[in-house]
Amino acid sequence: MKGFMKAHVFVTLKKTVLDAQGKTVCQALRGLGHSSITEVRQGKYFEIDIADGADPAAVRAEVDLIAREILANPVIEDYRFDIEE
Amino acid sequence: MKGFMKAHVFVTLKKTVLDAQGKTVCQALRGLGHSSITEVRQGKYFEIDIADGADPAAVRAEVDLIAREILANPVIEDYRFDIEE
Repeated sequence: MKGFMKAHVFVTLKKTVLDAQGKTVCQALRGLGHSSITEVRQGKYFEIDIADGADPAAVRAEVDLIAREILANPVIEDYRFDIEE
Repeated sequence: MKGFMKAHVFVTLKKTVLDAQGKTVCQALRGLGHSSITEVRQGKYFEIDIADGADPAAVRAEVDLIAREILANPVIEDYRFDIEE
C-alpha cells in the first residue's frame, strides 16, 4: 500500500479577532526595513496523510469534520483545506 | 491604493526532525476513531499582505528572503510560499 492521500488544513483566526502574533511579526518585519508589508496574519498548518483505499468523497467529509471539530476552534478560527491525491 | 499582493508562507519541520506536536495530534485523531490517518505534521502558516505597486519579481525575492531569514529556522525547518496577485 504505497499510494495515499494528503490533506492540507489551514487554520487562521477570524478576521474580526485580533491576531497579536501576526501583528508582532508585521511590526518586526517593518522594523527590519520591509516597509511594503502591510499586514501579517499567522495561523496553523497541518499536513495529514490518509491511508489509501478510502473513497475521496468520504475522505473529504472526514477531513472537514476533523478540521471543524478538532483542529480549529470555530468560535474564533476559520479553516480551509485541500486534498492532494 | 486598493490592490495588493498576498503571500502565503508555510513553514514545517524538516522530515528528519521529530514533530512531537504532529505525532500527538495524529495519536489523538486515531484515538478518536479516525483510523485512516497515518501521519500528521504541524507547521506554521503566514498570510502576508504586500502594498501594491511593487514589481512581482521583487516581491517574490523579498518574501523568499523573509521566509528564509525570519519566519523559518533553516536548520530544522523547511518553507515554501506562493504569491497571489
